[in-house]
Amino acid sequence: MTYDRFFSAALARLHQERRYRVFADLERIAGRFPRATWHSPDGPRPVVIWCSNDYLGMGQHPKVIGAMVETATRMGAGAGGTRNISGTNHPLVELERELADLHGKEAALVFTSGYVSNETGIPTIAGLLPDCVILSDAWNHNSMIEGVRRAGVDKKIWRHNDVAHLEELLAAEPPERPKLIVFEALYSMDGDVAPVKRICDLAERYGAMTYIDEVHSAGMYGPAGAGIAAREGALHRIDVVEGTLAKAFGGLGGYIAANADIIDAVRSYAAGFIFTTALPPAVCAAATAAIRHLKASQWERDRHQERAARVKVVLNSAGLPVMPSETHIVPVMMGDAETCKEASDLLLAEHGIYVQPINYPTVPRGTERLRITPTPYHDDALIDALAEALVDVWVRLGLPLRRHALAAE
Amino acid sequence: MTYDRFFSAALARLHQERRYRVFADLERIAGRFPRATWHSPDGPRPVVIWCSNDYLGMGQHPKVIGAMVETATRMGAGAGGTRNISGTNHPLVELERELADLHGKEAALVFTSGYVSNETGIPTIAGLLPDCVILSDAWNHNSMIEGVRRAGVDKKIWRHNDVAHLEELLAAEPPERPKLIVFEALYSMDGDVAPVKRICDLAERYGAMTYIDEVHSAGMYGPAGAGIAAREGALHRIDVVEGTLAKAFGGLGGYIAANADIIDAVRSYAAGFIFTTALPPAVCAAATAAIRHLKASQWERDRHQERAARVKVVLNSAGLPVMPSETHIVPVMMGDAETCKEASDLLLAEHGIYVQPINYPTVPRGTERLRITPTPYHDDALIDALAEALVDVWVRLGLPLRRHALAAE
Ligand SMILES: Cc1ncc(COP(=O)(O)O)c(C=O)c1O
Ligand SMILES: Cc1ncc(COP(=O)(O)O)c(C=O)c1O
Repeated sequence: MTYDRFFSAALARLHQERRYRVFADLERIAGRFPRATWHSPDGPRPVVIWCSNDYLGMGQHPKVIGAMVETATRMGAGAGGTRNISGTNHPLVELERELADLHGKEAALVFTSGYVSNETGIPTIAGLLPDCVILSDAWNHNSMIEGVRRAGVDKKIWRHNDVAHLEELLAAEPPERPKLIVFEALYSMDGDVAPVKRICDLAERYGAMTYIDEVHSAGMYGPAGAGIAAREGALHRIDVVEGTLAKAFGGLGGYIAANADIIDAVRSYAAGFIFTTALPPAVCAAATAAIRHLKASQWERDRHQERAARVKVVLNSAGLPVMPSETHIVPVMMGDAETCKEASDLLLAEHGIYVQPINYPTVPRGTERLRITPTPYHDDALIDALAEALVDVWVRLGLPLRRHALAAE
Repeated sequence: MTYDRFFSAALARLHQERRYRVFADLERIAGRFPRATWHSPDGPRPVVIWCSNDYLGMGQHPKVIGAMVETATRMGAGAGGTRNISGTNHPLVELERELADLHGKEAALVFTSGYVSNETGIPTIAGLLPDCVILSDAWNHNSMIEGVRRAGVDKKIWRHNDVAHLEELLAAEPPERPKLIVFEALYSMDGDVAPVKRICDLAERYGAMTYIDEVHSAGMYGPAGAGIAAREGALHRIDVVEGTLAKAFGGLGGYIAANADIIDAVRSYAAGFIFTTALPPAVCAAATAAIRHLKASQWERDRHQERAARVKVVLNSAGLPVMPSETHIVPVMMGDAETCKEASDLLLAEHGIYVQPINYPTVPRGTERLRITPTPYHDDALIDALAEALVDVWVRLGLPLRRHALAAE
């Protein structure tokens, strides 16, 4: 029996639907962020990255690189084991303390990634609550959906950011039944923010636990970069904060922060935490350096917001279909996979601008988009060049530009 | 409603069963492997690590540290995005080529960890095969069990390494039904090896796909470190090789290697691969350096086997209950969680020797053990000190030592 046909058929389906993905082979250049070398099929070419999730460029901050280099030199490249079997390393212990402090919680636990934190954290917590029901926002990230599914408990999906619907679902449950509300602080494909305070109100009224994903907000919002819940003054009302070390903090890894018993229980029961190698000391030290820097420095956060606002204004006044966003995410609607890919290809080939097309399953079909992420290091000239390149691509592809916008320019 | 009691009760259960885990806070010292500093509750103390899964000490090899440092300096600390959205970095692309070459396959795909490779690789492959049945060895690692469970397809568990039982299960399935045989090359808690050739014979006879986990063997066995399947001359008969970058290669990350279509299909369909940040370039470059070094150098593999053999002889002749093992793993049976923990605590406190107790759920209850992993850098003096310390602990805890063994010494 030959199995090849199953795999080639699966690939053919993707080509047919125009959502076969090609990864851009990039080489970032420390100190020249957001510039990089693209290893194109025709050889290396300089590009400007406009879709990085190293939102603040911290992955190239001298303190962060310095911590990584110094720690690798002193302690080596890897942890050498699982957390339990020789892998717990001092920089990892320090990182967990730093994260607990950042989010004002008693303790924190680091995982291999933000994905793993959600996928293993959510089911472990839900699994320790007898007959728990999970209430999950409809737009939650795949890692949370996977975590909820894996919990194998009852789940109710509330309409995205719709607290009335959440209340309806909460009210329908017996008061004594354990409930876990799972949501994101900032939804990264649209750039909208959860009504954190109103969710906490409901959690208190109906006796639910709260689990917030601050993957796209920690480091970037709130005092000292503690996140959206902190900005809203609601951090103390949140039971579990989940986050990543791979976006604002520029590295790799994920975490949860909560009271000591919750953390200790997840540490002790979560298979996806127990049976895997710990993060390397150098990776941990880099993350700690980034968190500490962003606790003390407001510059990156202010400049980030200012740059994002400017990109929105410039693209809007060029008549481009910028989607409304309250945050640093600037999505530009394309509406189908093929146009989205064509636009992205043209930007890269003709203008040396790299913005990856965002297609299904990352966003729903029909809402394919270019997702632009300005950083503190995208200067005015880069923003103007982006706008010109986009207009050029729009014209070439025969896409509509808003007239009055062009006229107003 | 208060949730605290659920978490404190969960922790109390662990204390009651004597399997509450305490992690040793370690600081490895590059260049002094296997020595480290243990941040004990009473302050830092020097220890010798005897349970590292950095089996060959490659995490501290100058070439590996050099690659990590050089790459972090040039490209920064993180990848900056998911594989699709700006995270594919050149050192990662090179690493995937190196891994494909190592295992003689057309392509390879890197994941955040070996755990994630199994947990997301197995269900993605099984999910693309209509009405697939998975045949899984009873002793498979938690990450494979999780992968099989997540596949949500029929599964049959064959008794550990029992090919007759495997054949029975294969024969009971309709010939045209897709079948996936999932097993480990080397079982890391007992140190025994799978009958790879006979499994491949059955796979061919019954038309099954084969998926082998070489996590504890890649780098350490076979020509150029290609693993156990390669040593057995069966690599070309294996469809999917899975491995880690965190054991013999001393870093972090996991992978699968297979033909191009399988890899491309997993790349395109696996949620646990798509929705997470890519490995940092410096972590990838370190892994590539380790793989390349071990392809060319046989010294580490030979010395590793020689050291493991010596440890077995020395501990055996001291009358200690060394469990039979065909490989570099040296398990010493304790039989219950409490004694195992006591022995480990005494070794650490009194002798500065760190061997973590291995308890349930990592091994079945009643088979708790000390799992010793000699490396090329454990010299004769360290081995003698280990034997003396173990005998001392045995005497203190009133555990039996084999008499004739002592006499024979
Ligand atoms: C909301 C959300 N949570 C978690 C993750 C996963 O984080 P990581 O990249 O660290 O795995 C992502 C995206 O990567 C995300 O968008
Ligand atoms: C057989 C097996 N597969 C996979 C893994 C996971 O590999 P990693 O540590 O890279 O997650 C382990 C242990 O860690 C293992 O023993």
